[in-house]
Amino acid sequence: MNPSKDSCNCCSTGNALKDRIQKEGKVLPGNIIKVDGFLNHKVDTALMEDIADQFAKIFDISKISVVLTAEASGIPVAAICAQKFGVPFIFAKKAKSDNIENGLYKSELYSYTYRKTVTMIVSTEWLKPEDHVLIIDDFMAMGNAVNALIDIVGQCGCTLEGVGVVVEKGFQGGGDALRRRPELNYHALAVIDKADENGIVFREEK
Amino acid sequence: MNPSKDSCNCCSTGNALKDRIQKEGKVLPGNIIKVDGFLNHKVDTALMEDIADQFAKIFDISKISVVLTAEASGIPVAAICAQKFGVPFIFAKKAKSDNIENGLYKSELYSYTYRKTVTMIVSTEWLKPEDHVLIIDDFMAMGNAVNALIDIVGQCGCTLEGVGVVVEKGFQGGGDALRRRPELNYHALAVIDKADENGIVFREEK
Repeated sequence: MNPSKDSCNCCSTGNALKDRIQKEGKVLPGNIIKVDGFLNHKVDTALMEDIADQFAKIFDISKISVVLTAEASGIPVAAICAQKFGVPFIFAKKAKSDNIENGLYKSELYSYTYRKTVTMIVSTEWLKPEDHVLIIDDFMAMGNAVNALIDIVGQCGCTLEGVGVVVEKGFQGGGDALRRRPELNYHALAVIDKADENGIVFREEK
Repeated sequence: MNPSKDSCNCCSTGNALKDRIQKEGKVLPGNIIKVDGFLNHKVDTALMEDIADQFAKIFDISKISVVLTAEASGIPVAAICAQKFGVPFIFAKKAKSDNIENGLYKSELYSYTYRKTVTMIVSTEWLKPEDHVLIIDDFMAMGNAVNALIDIVGQCGCTLEGVGVVVEKGFQGGGDALRRRPELNYHALAVIDKADENGIVFREEK
């Protein structure tokens, strides 16, 4: 762990993503981990390419017809993954009102960001039963957004090839719940098991 | 104009973006133009690369340090433009509550999508006075979102190198208002001057 923000290379994990989280991630009260300088407000596109390359080693990209993510913060990484994999992507939208039109897959989830139940929607026109889907998201805590996307894939009847998350807050349980369902083929690139005033501790890779 | 969705090549404009709008765009009541099959719900990443190449011919990319866009539908095109230009990008967020923290550039706009006033925010930590900014957005109607981004650039005091929009609804006036301010260096890749039950008519390029 590196307590200094002006980091040397002595504590490099050899992993660009984890290094950036260690050096630039901020832990706020309530176990909030802020990585908005490179992942979900200002976005480092070179790092997104590196992340896409990491996912391409984990998942069989040749099988995938479309990447699926959730607006808004999932879009940057999904866009660059899909571009590098040579496929389109779909971003599930948050319904703007209770008056939701027909022709949509819908899944309700509780949003901790919005502090209310929101409905994620995907048009049945664009996600098709013959699709082979890779779900990609930037962050996993309780897993509500990813579970809504898995629900939508199930409603569609298309094939889920895997679920890839960039940063998982391992101590909140969402990722481990997905690992107990091996058919989902869930992987996170950086699992944070502890985040407090002493810094960030990653789960050791098996 | 091509009234058929199963289009031949006889009416190709020689421009991949305009061809897709002609062939797949849908005109809904209220002059709503739906291009959600390739631009802002399902996203064609190869077309986004072509769009990035078009912007690179219009703007001096060597001067740009960061691309700025607005969540959510501006993110796909901004992500792939920034990646191809070798720079990071920032997406302005919609404030989630009235209780907005400090350290932010803020601009209020009326959102026709949300049918209410929303506040766009960008952290002062990530957009800096020394930045050279290219604003990129997917759609321009009245121009409210782009004007909020221009306002944020002005608050920051950084240099605006240009404003690029993928699809402009020319008949709604937002683009022409920006053209009357040549210092903004505004360009749209496809300007739609008419959209009704007879189809879509593009403004002729000068």
